[in-house]
Amino acid sequence: MSNKLPVGILGATGVVGQRFIQMLENHAWFEVAWLAASDRSEGKTYAEAVRWRLKRAIPANAAGMKVSPAGPEGAPKIIFAALDASIAAELEPRFAEAGCAVVSNSSALRMKGDVPLVIPEVNSGHIKLIDTQPWRKKSGGYVVTNPNCSAIGLVLALAPLHQRFGLETVMAVTMQAVSGAGYPGVASLDILGNVIPYIRNEEEKMEEETLKLLGQVNGTKIVPAGFAMSAQCNRVAVEDGHTESVSVRLKRKAKAEEIIAAWNEYRSEPQELKLPSAPERPVVYLEANDRPQPRFDVDTGAGMTTVVGRLRPCGVLDWKFTVLSHNTIRGAAGAALLNAELLKAKGYLNPDVGK
Amino acid sequence: MSNKLPVGILGATGVVGQRFIQMLENHAWFEVAWLAASDRSEGKTYAEAVRWRLKRAIPANAAGMKVSPAGPEGAPKIIFAALDASIAAELEPRFAEAGCAVVSNSSALRMKGDVPLVIPEVNSGHIKLIDTQPWRKKSGGYVVTNPNCSAIGLVLALAPLHQRFGLETVMAVTMQAVSGAGYPGVASLDILGNVIPYIRNEEEKMEEETLKLLGQVNGTKIVPAGFAMSAQCNRVAVEDGHTESVSVRLKRKAKAEEIIAAWNEYRSEPQELKLPSAPERPVVYLEANDRPQPRFDVDTGAGMTTVVGRLRPCGVLDWKFTVLSHNTIRGAAGAALLNAELLKAKGYLNPDVGK
Amino acid sequence: MSNKLPVGILGATGVVGQRFIQMLENHAWFEVAWLAASDRSEGKTYAEAVRWRLKRAIPANAAGMKVSPAGPEGAPKIIFAALDASIAAELEPRFAEAGCAVVSNSSALRMKGDVPLVIPEVNSGHIKLIDTQPWRKKSGGYVVTNPNCSAIGLVLALAPLHQRFGLETVMAVTMQAVSGAGYPGVASLDILGNVIPYIRNEEEKMEEETLKLLGQVNGTKIVPAGFAMSAQCNRVAVEDGHTESVSVRLKRKAKAEEIIAAWNEYRSEPQELKLPSAPERPVVYLEANDRPQPRFDVDTGAGMTTVVGRLRPCGVLDWKFTVLSHNTIRGAAGAALLNAELLKAKGYLNPDVGK
Amino acid sequence: MSNKLPVGILGATGVVGQRFIQMLENHAWFEVAWLAASDRSEGKTYAEAVRWRLKRAIPANAAGMKVSPAGPEGAPKIIFAALDASIAAELEPRFAEAGCAVVSNSSALRMKGDVPLVIPEVNSGHIKLIDTQPWRKKSGGYVVTNPNCSAIGLVLALAPLHQRFGLETVMAVTMQAVSGAGYPGVASLDILGNVIPYIRNEEEKMEEETLKLLGQVNGTKIVPAGFAMSAQCNRVAVEDGHTESVSVRLKRKAKAEEIIAAWNEYRSEPQELKLPSAPERPVVYLEANDRPQPRFDVDTGAGMTTVVGRLRPCGVLDWKFTVLSHNTIRGAAGAALLNAELLKAKGYLNPDVGK
Repeated sequence: MSNKLPVGILGATGVVGQRFIQMLENHAWFEVAWLAASDRSEGKTYAEAVRWRLKRAIPANAAGMKVSPAGPEGAPKIIFAALDASIAAELEPRFAEAGCAVVSNSSALRMKGDVPLVIPEVNSGHIKLIDTQPWRKKSGGYVVTNPNCSAIGLVLALAPLHQRFGLETVMAVTMQAVSGAGYPGVASLDILGNVIPYIRNEEEKMEEETLKLLGQVNGTKIVPAGFAMSAQCNRVAVEDGHTESVSVRLKRKAKAEEIIAAWNEYRSEPQELKLPSAPERPVVYLEANDRPQPRFDVDTGAGMTTVVGRLRPCGVLDWKFTVLSHNTIRGAAGAALLNAELLKAKGYLNPDVGK
Repeated sequence: MSNKLPVGILGATGVVGQRFIQMLENHAWFEVAWLAASDRSEGKTYAEAVRWRLKRAIPANAAGMKVSPAGPEGAPKIIFAALDASIAAELEPRFAEAGCAVVSNSSALRMKGDVPLVIPEVNSGHIKLIDTQPWRKKSGGYVVTNPNCSAIGLVLALAPLHQRFGLETVMAVTMQAVSGAGYPGVASLDILGNVIPYIRNEEEKMEEETLKLLGQVNGTKIVPAGFAMSAQCNRVAVEDGHTESVSVRLKRKAKAEEIIAAWNEYRSEPQELKLPSAPERPVVYLEANDRPQPRFDVDTGAGMTTVVGRLRPCGVLDWKFTVLSHNTIRGAAGAALLNAELLKAKGYLNPDVGK
Repeated sequence: MSNKLPVGILGATGVVGQRFIQMLENHAWFEVAWLAASDRSEGKTYAEAVRWRLKRAIPANAAGMKVSPAGPEGAPKIIFAALDASIAAELEPRFAEAGCAVVSNSSALRMKGDVPLVIPEVNSGHIKLIDTQPWRKKSGGYVVTNPNCSAIGLVLALAPLHQRFGLETVMAVTMQAVSGAGYPGVASLDILGNVIPYIRNEEEKMEEETLKLLGQVNGTKIVPAGFAMSAQCNRVAVEDGHTESVSVRLKRKAKAEEIIAAWNEYRSEPQELKLPSAPERPVVYLEANDRPQPRFDVDTGAGMTTVVGRLRPCGVLDWKFTVLSHNTIRGAAGAALLNAELLKAKGYLNPDVGK
Repeated sequence: MSNKLPVGILGATGVVGQRFIQMLENHAWFEVAWLAASDRSEGKTYAEAVRWRLKRAIPANAAGMKVSPAGPEGAPKIIFAALDASIAAELEPRFAEAGCAVVSNSSALRMKGDVPLVIPEVNSGHIKLIDTQPWRKKSGGYVVTNPNCSAIGLVLALAPLHQRFGLETVMAVTMQAVSGAGYPGVASLDILGNVIPYIRNEEEKMEEETLKLLGQVNGTKIVPAGFAMSAQCNRVAVEDGHTESVSVRLKRKAKAEEIIAAWNEYRSEPQELKLPSAPERPVVYLEANDRPQPRFDVDTGAGMTTVVGRLRPCGVLDWKFTVLSHNTIRGAAGAALLNAELLKAKGYLNPDVGK
């Protein structure tokens, strides 16, 4: 019998739920034991309920699993959540209340004062907030979140700069993949040969999440980073991979080679702890003058590495560059999975989290 | 017999050359009398030489016209030039030398001190520079240019703001259509499902041309506008229409409604002179929160109107918004055509320009 | 006051409903007087209710019109119907029962024995079936239908051959545009960089409708054409325009030039009657060896002309060729509109059809 | 030191050349020792010369290799050739003449009477023709070819049917990926939102190669298969994977389950010999009613498996179905590689082929 930790997936049939199942197929520590989705999937096998949209086939063990109702009864104590925000707002607290470790990709609770919003390479210390959650005190359960798919690549590119030079100003314009909108998501009549210069709530999320992620823990609070920040978000006809044109002003002036070194040398706790899903290099800088490009670079580091390129002086701020990140791996399922691995390494997970 | 002015087209088989022919088909003032292209087209009819890439069929009179050698002998005295920069650098002066009015879409001479770079709505006064050109003095010929396809939409959106409020800082990130690269241009293997974060020399052109266009004539010189400017240029899988995410800081603070009014009320010399290709409204602001989009808005004003949308406060500068402009009409052939119409209205064109 | 006939549109907010409104904007005979859509649109203005997906803006008179409930009370007596089949099956008879002339684009009743399935160029005689409909007898109302968007282009290409040479066998493989699936229709994650070799019920419709359209009226019945027919239907990443690779065997052997002449010379009743939406040429053959192509040829004849190309011998049947037809104009809204014009010309329409 | 056989690649910088290098990176038997490309690449390293268009990075050993002149001097005795037909026609004989085993993906010599055109699963016996080649007799060198990328998937789907039931008639319509046209190949302005119903010479190749591949060796000749065959070829906006809508008539009538079994049970010599690049299953039938699709199924069997789906009765012939095959793996580099593995297993390859 396996001695892996059993985990459940809330929202298992969506695009991010599918990625969870794919990334957990042969995971060293976790094993999918329970799948839940909306009512209309209940009672079906997962293979019947899902419209599988990934290139590799459905893992066999998941394919035959019955889809359970989306409540904590009978669910494992470790839950990956990939729910729409409105549903998450109601369901995630119920699972935490019931003693589950809820590792969430949803935006519902990210900005809540006592909910850690975590990228393990960047702000693993924020997980301390768990102990301030009322659920934790009552049932042992808690909620930990990862950022929006457009914020995570940006923050991984910014963190090494913030650490070494300090950030004063950040401007980002995104060109985001359609998979970020889920399935069916963006209609083909809306995006073929087109750019949509609007994604609901996305700019707000990018701006506030970036500041929380790069903020400091002060007792039981996060003090957001203090730099100025502006985001503009666009949708383009790309399947996977959010590309971002970024400009920054630094507190301490830096040369191009120092900045590139900051990215290429960046290693952090997940790399030291050798977490199973941690990429060897969280950030990679490409020298070619026309990279990164989603079609060719999105799978770098199995989709967990943020790829940066085109560093050059900015006529307004100090430097400009391009960032690429896989939006459903590093930007969603992989983000939550790495969070869960961090929690495990830090002793926050066991088969009976809240017992 | 027609009493329209005979014009010639240099680079007639390219994507921009094709647009010239299409836009001149039933022009009120001009008539295509001569077509030139590279050596391998010489002697063929235009229909044989061209790989026509527009939706409406080749105009009949152009279809049967013989393609001439690309020299001023036998050419009309009014020349529209749609040449690659390296060829333009050599050919355009030869035509000017020979007494031709060269109305050029090429980048070769745009930044030359005595060559006007003109958008008729924005800086029609710059055409005075013509009189300082040595060709003008010698043969009567001259060169007038229009800006790069990524600069023109931006400048049309900026000019009303600069006029009313003054610009202090401008940042622009583009998502440019493949037709901007000519034909065959961008390979399908490079752009399907992809973003290319690099277009050779494009950012430099956008930055320096914007400042020259919004600059002031001082005697025989243009003093470039003094604001800070930064551009990042990306290619996306769109056929026609460059979309730009722009942020600005203004000298005099303005409310959203004042800015929108500045755009919607903008009228200028081409509108007053009723130039045949002038759009009724050079700039239109759309209220819908997800517009402009190239697929739906690129043909506004027959492709001559710049469409703006999504005005909202910027966390770093003052305001951010989205700009869309048709890159081969307003950004190329239509730009040159409107320049020619301005020149005609101002008395700079006649059938024997330099006689 | 206008003396145009007032018409209503059922399913006005869908992709085909939008085309109806666009094509009726300045129609010589008809005028949109009433719009209906699903319950959730009721009470809104059309501009509020619709997600407009066409390039030209919403016609002003339609934009401000209130969306009515989808029942015959208060509706005009001429109704264009663009409903999903399941809804059409219930609603269209209700309108016919109430004395309306229902000119339908839906598949619900197309194959019913007493419902004419009509392409005015091909089988205008079939409208006689109207007089056999029980609704007609009772209230004066009736239903006339046009074929599926994939059948209509094919049949327009086949009809001249059937007429001159006789068809013995037809094989067609389609590559269909996403607009054929309505809005939101095909998800972008399903079609970007992809081909979907399946469209529900489409092959069955193409096969049986083609035979009914090319069939003969025998008293009060249609005897379907007797040739063998097979269709395979694929979806591709094209916005508008169904392309079809077709092979045929003819009863009487014909030379290439005879076949091309049959297409190019094809004129029929709508052309003779000068129906307002009738294209001057229902079928056009292009000589270029790589045409027709949807991007360049779909708007031929304002989207009402079927474009054929690449005629060459077939190693199995006699001849093979490529057919292109605009699926939401000639294949849907324009088809119904031309049917209505035929009905008007034949005396089947008046403002109080069933009185 | 490695005891793998050293191989060279002619046309190493093209799309197929790149696939060769990728597939040979860790090959069990072969090792890339020499790369040649056109004159303008000579003297550069491979990394400098190539515009690498694959998702995984350039293998390190190839990246640093110098590009050699395209002549047999200094080349290994085993040559993979991925050349344009016109160049191949001149170069391949020169290498064979010089004693090389030329394993070619080019069309130049495929239909030559004494050149085997081989798919190892289908007609491995055809390699006997090698011994009839004059080069073989003179220098030991020879040429073996694989079919066109559109023929190979079709023939792998047809072979099991031909074997069990006999083919009488075959009709195929293709929807081919842009990578089949090489790089830069298809211009984005030609294919975005479009279908091109023409690929030069492709239909002829599909038809004649299919018959040669399924033909019989008779002494020193191939007697082509005798069934009737017709192909229509289209280009679509897909990156990798040719999809084909096929209809067949069989000599011996078969039920659907017999046909599906014929595909699923198909195993052949490469599987028995356990050739390193042989897929476990050459043909797989998918039950889902909307598969195969290039985006989701093209990598089946590492791109070496032909995927079939949608078997259903045909109204004209007996059965129709959809075939998908990876055009640059199974349809080009993988085809040649599997041919080379077959030759090795049969004793036709050694480090000094022609000595």
